[in-house]
Amino acid sequence: MKKPATLRDVGEDALVKRLIADAPLGAEVVAGAGDDCAVVKGVRRGELCLLKTDAIVEGVHFESECAPRLVGRKALARVLSDVAAMGGRPGQAMVTLILPSETAIKWVEAVYAGLYQLARQHGVSVVGGETTRGKERILSVALTGVVSAKRWAARGGGRSGDVLLVTGKLGGSIGGRHLTFEPRLEQGQWLVEHFPIHAMMDISDGLAKDLPRLAGGAGLGFRVDLDRLPRHRGCSVEQAWGDGEDYELLMAVPKRCLKRLQTDWGERFPRVPLTAIGELVEAEASTGGPAGGWDPFVRP
Amino acid sequence: MKKPATLRDVGEDALVKRLIADAPLGAEVVAGAGDDCAVVKGVRRGELCLLKTDAIVEGVHFESECAPRLVGRKALARVLSDVAAMGGRPGQAMVTLILPSETAIKWVEAVYAGLYQLARQHGVSVVGGETTRGKERILSVALTGVVSAKRWAARGGGRSGDVLLVTGKLGGSIGGRHLTFEPRLEQGQWLVEHFPIHAMMDISDGLAKDLPRLAGGAGLGFRVDLDRLPRHRGCSVEQAWGDGEDYELLMAVPKRCLKRLQTDWGERFPRVPLTAIGELVEAEASTGGPAGGWDPFVRP
Repeated sequence: MKKPATLRDVGEDALVKRLIADAPLGAEVVAGAGDDCAVVKGVRRGELCLLKTDAIVEGVHFESECAPRLVGRKALARVLSDVAAMGGRPGQAMVTLILPSETAIKWVEAVYAGLYQLARQHGVSVVGGETTRGKERILSVALTGVVSAKRWAARGGGRSGDVLLVTGKLGGSIGGRHLTFEPRLEQGQWLVEHFPIHAMMDISDGLAKDLPRLAGGAGLGFRVDLDRLPRHRGCSVEQAWGDGEDYELLMAVPKRCLKRLQTDWGERFPRVPLTAIGELVEAEASTGGPAGGWDPFVRP
Repeated sequence: MKKPATLRDVGEDALVKRLIADAPLGAEVVAGAGDDCAVVKGVRRGELCLLKTDAIVEGVHFESECAPRLVGRKALARVLSDVAAMGGRPGQAMVTLILPSETAIKWVEAVYAGLYQLARQHGVSVVGGETTRGKERILSVALTGVVSAKRWAARGGGRSGDVLLVTGKLGGSIGGRHLTFEPRLEQGQWLVEHFPIHAMMDISDGLAKDLPRLAGGAGLGFRVDLDRLPRHRGCSVEQAWGDGEDYELLMAVPKRCLKRLQTDWGERFPRVPLTAIGELVEAEASTGGPAGGWDPFVRP
């Protein structure tokens, strides 16, 4: 008898695709599952509400020896990065902690201290959450946000011929940056305010996984110049392409804007690189890239 | 050397109290952590936004042999119950699944089917979520909702002399009702619309734990007539008092309304009992009740 299919067999993307196909969606929902955040009507005129939730698990997203302040910081920073990828401003956060009963109170307090510090830095209110018992340490953060109804960046809005750009540098975040990265909120807001950003997302599972998602969201393919990937010191092209948890912004921008974008960006964010790495093309012209990237179920 | 304090030593209430003391809160927050839902400004004029998140863990809130449809249903029903306890209407849900890689896809799909079915029944949109890998099965649901800015029920608004009432019957939910209960959304909305409900909450950890929370939220004590607790068939007074997961509404109502409330309720909800079980009193006059109730960290 054939064994029933498991998550490891199928992987995250295929699972999510199956699950969201049936999701109930009311008329208030502008964008449901599948983007960095959900987008919903019902806030002030001219604005839309963003909703996002994300979890980090001990042994998967952080190791037991990690400083607890950085663990708390990371849990919030990841969802802030998703709000940044929509060009949004963060609002309220709710924090869920699942912890073994023998967890030291000091550890929990340090986790919250790190999370609260980053929350204050970005004007985020922490309005609730929950603690309950589990076998391993897990933090989940749900976050609201707001975008201008006229200026926000979906993942799937790319057009053939758009230039692909990434902020910052890529690769090797496992060495520590996955705990200390700065979510690109200021950059995301500035981008949607000043330029027609056709599509944007944050790179959380590696360009190898996320670039096909951005292109595929618009039914397109891509060409990427791997030698031009902005790499962190000591990182190979393979690492810049395949490593997860960069939390940089990946965007598709009309070619006619490229020069002005690069000039204005350089003035506004002189310390953050912005690099053109390729372009969106029709699916049949796609050269794709090497395999890689991060899947929580498939990696051992 | 003294061992550092753990969650088991301290328990959930003390932990949460420590953690929320420092929570950053902006001017938009009407009520932060500590109530059934957080309450936030920023939606349509005359309305307030509700935010809630809650997690269920295999072996703690459901057993591995539970029907997966009911597991998914329960994860959503619990947060719907919290929205009901504010007198609110639910809006959008986000679902987080933490699962071992060897979990069968069929199990995950059945979980979602149960959750989606209850979502449709209550007009809830499921706008996103996340799946990631963990050692045990955990579902976390974040939910938004809406209340009238003029008519909603906080947990801590009780006044001395208020009558305490509960909907439905209590006790023994571990026999199955914890998976199949109907969140009291209709009742919660009707109550805040027609009566000055001073305080309301849902009974999730047992009256023994939740009644002191409701009274304590207003700096008050309570007197409870244990013999009058509405009990499910076959349940003892101790079970009605101490068992968790009833998901009935507990409320404090001015005495002058009691007669009209009971008459109108009987006409509107003839199949759901509404029982006066005691009253709120000044803290120094409190008789309290026997110990009991459910704490995720303290129970073995």
